[in-house]
Amino acid sequence: MKAIIQTNLEDPHSLELGETNKPQLQDGEVLVKVKAAGVNRADLLQARGHYPPPPGASEIIGLEVAGEVVDAGDTDVEVGSKVGALLAGGGYAEYVAVPQGQLLPIPTGYSFAEAASVIEVACTVWSNIAMEAGLTQGQTILIHGGAGGIGTFAIQVAKQLGATVAVTAGSDEKLETCKELGADILINYNEQDFAEELKNQCDVILDIMGAKYLKKNLIALAKGGHMVTIGMQGGTKAELNMGILLNKRLTLQGTTLRSRSLEGKATIVADTVKHVWPWLENGSVKHYLHATYALARAAEAHKALDSGEVTGKLVLEV
Amino acid sequence: MKAIIQTNLEDPHSLELGETNKPQLQDGEVLVKVKAAGVNRADLLQARGHYPPPPGASEIIGLEVAGEVVDAGDTDVEVGSKVGALLAGGGYAEYVAVPQGQLLPIPTGYSFAEAASVIEVACTVWSNIAMEAGLTQGQTILIHGGAGGIGTFAIQVAKQLGATVAVTAGSDEKLETCKELGADILINYNEQDFAEELKNQCDVILDIMGAKYLKKNLIALAKGGHMVTIGMQGGTKAELNMGILLNKRLTLQGTTLRSRSLEGKATIVADTVKHVWPWLENGSVKHYLHATYALARAAEAHKALDSGEVTGKLVLEV
Ligand SMILES: NC(=O)c1ccc[n+]([C@@H]2O[C@H](COP(=O)([O-])OP(=O)(O)OC[C@H]3O[C@@H](n4cnc5c(N)ncnc54)[C@H](OP(=O)(O)O)[C@@H]3O)[C@@H](O)[C@H]2O)c1
Ligand SMILES: NC(=O)c1ccc[n+]([C@@H]2O[C@H](COP(=O)([O-])OP(=O)(O)OC[C@H]3O[C@@H](n4cnc5c(N)ncnc54)[C@H](OP(=O)(O)O)[C@@H]3O)[C@@H](O)[C@H]2O)c1
Repeated sequence: MKAIIQTNLEDPHSLELGETNKPQLQDGEVLVKVKAAGVNRADLLQARGHYPPPPGASEIIGLEVAGEVVDAGDTDVEVGSKVGALLAGGGYAEYVAVPQGQLLPIPTGYSFAEAASVIEVACTVWSNIAMEAGLTQGQTILIHGGAGGIGTFAIQVAKQLGATVAVTAGSDEKLETCKELGADILINYNEQDFAEELKNQCDVILDIMGAKYLKKNLIALAKGGHMVTIGMQGGTKAELNMGILLNKRLTLQGTTLRSRSLEGKATIVADTVKHVWPWLENGSVKHYLHATYALARAAEAHKALDSGEVTGKLVLEV
Repeated sequence: MKAIIQTNLEDPHSLELGETNKPQLQDGEVLVKVKAAGVNRADLLQARGHYPPPPGASEIIGLEVAGEVVDAGDTDVEVGSKVGALLAGGGYAEYVAVPQGQLLPIPTGYSFAEAASVIEVACTVWSNIAMEAGLTQGQTILIHGGAGGIGTFAIQVAKQLGATVAVTAGSDEKLETCKELGADILINYNEQDFAEELKNQCDVILDIMGAKYLKKNLIALAKGGHMVTIGMQGGTKAELNMGILLNKRLTLQGTTLRSRSLEGKATIVADTVKHVWPWLENGSVKHYLHATYALARAAEAHKALDSGEVTGKLVLEV
């Protein structure tokens, strides 16, 4: 089959369309003929050698696809079903093997490209703010990087859950985008101190900054607050005052979707489809497809995402 | 009414029996005539001025009592009921006002003194290892200070939940006590490195050391592990590597029982009675009453607990 091969592991842009073997199905897996594959920031990291696939996963880049089941293996999935899939790897290819629990229906009215663009972000946001942090009606959530890929989606999901939404972003223009999506409290991180603005107010924080914001996040958290960190854009090593953890009864959690067990992923996929898919289908939560590229042009797509000029998602079409 | 009054706030041992007003009932509270009041390490801290009562709570020391309801206020509690009570303060007295949600039945076969000795420890252990950390059958828990008041109880509860139990203690004699209570893995913290012995194995850690053990606890935690810190015996400020949080998908949580809301306490009390009381009543979980003192001898009881020579609980009888 055709797939994107990194020809030089030292060069993250040496992504070329090549030939490799079709994946062998393991127990409980189906073979999906890929129509569209989402491009994620983690894919850029993997091409740089910083985010190796978990043991047993495909070496091929790509964390989410949409396509058609062409071999059901030992499962009861119907051959010919149109599906989305959350992957540990292998998406930038003509075919990919997918554990049955990681298949999702295509949201009604969505194209393959639109479906492939929304799976990772939806599972990441839902699993962290709802399943882990337990965000509920009437609570306040702080979403760092509200105008980013994760942030724009998280704002909308949090509003659907009935939360008050605070966001940080780097410019007033980006904050305007957040406001249009429903954000209630807008903080320009270049001009304001979010810890001061939100002291003791945040029941939940969705954090992508890590060490750089730890101290301020502890100030912003309310009693009983829960922070989920999913990114380390501000480094990893920080001083932690555990006295504050105790006094405010705080929970700090780190998660990655990719490293979870099959069972863990299946639980997240099922819960995300149950709660988020209806919002995608009735238009109350939207995700922005910025552009599509032919699979062979993966290197170009990576460069575009890397440039920081993309607002919304890039998708490769096969 | 009679109550223990601290006559000199500079002197933690100036605890004398004095006269003060009976507490006024607030909405939803009942008046309990105290028969027995448990003595906790937090009470020593409070007498030293280090652990002030939460806003609105009694200034009188004492976090747990057993006794008889003498005024039901606006509740439907029956006057004359024999009850235990979890308190935010006020236990070292003839009468104490108790929010209805913080009343517990006396375990069948328990004396007032025995009941008063077990409430704080049972609610602390159950809320943290079961309700917060979600310990379940087949998981491994590390309990620091396994031979202490919290530790001895936690070992037994964790065994009832079907967990594998690892403990730390400061001597082989203390580890022998832990073993008799069911502990499976015994670690002498003066001779062994628990992080090395338990690397990546602990689904849950019940921590009382704080900063001093943070780094080692992160090593000992398994993927998806959850640490609950309830004590800071090893200080508060530590370096945290958030990269490990993410890679291992860890949860770090700090809690205190006393600072929780009425609602939070009521939920914990109800769940503890539901799950732990049957074990107390059938003898599968035991708690050791070391000695009882007359209320007037509170200062002596505090000195005894402070000496470190007490194994088991002290109770004041009124
Ligand atoms: N753990 C997981 O399972 C998982 C899954 C998906 C993504 N992630 C992580 O989540 C993060 C966001 O992903 P993404 O796809 O949304 O990337 P993205 O679209 O590139 O967004 C990056 C965001 O970071 C924000 N940012 C940069 N510096 C900031 C600062 N000092 N304060 C606050 N925000 C700041 C940016 O805000 P401005 O544009 O306003 O400057 C932007 O919104 C990444 O770190 C990614 O690795 C983790
Ligand atoms: N947050 C809450 O809601 C809450 C409620 C109750 C208690 N607590 C806290 O929980 C802790 C234990 O309370 P307790 O009533 O069980 O007190 P305790 O009976 O005095 O126990 C103290 C324990 O600390 C252990 N310890 C001391 N140094 C240690 C070390 N380097 N490594 C491992 N263990 C060590 C001791 O072990 P050895 O005797 O073997 O040396 C002992 O078992 C206290 O810090 C208390 O403040 C918190």
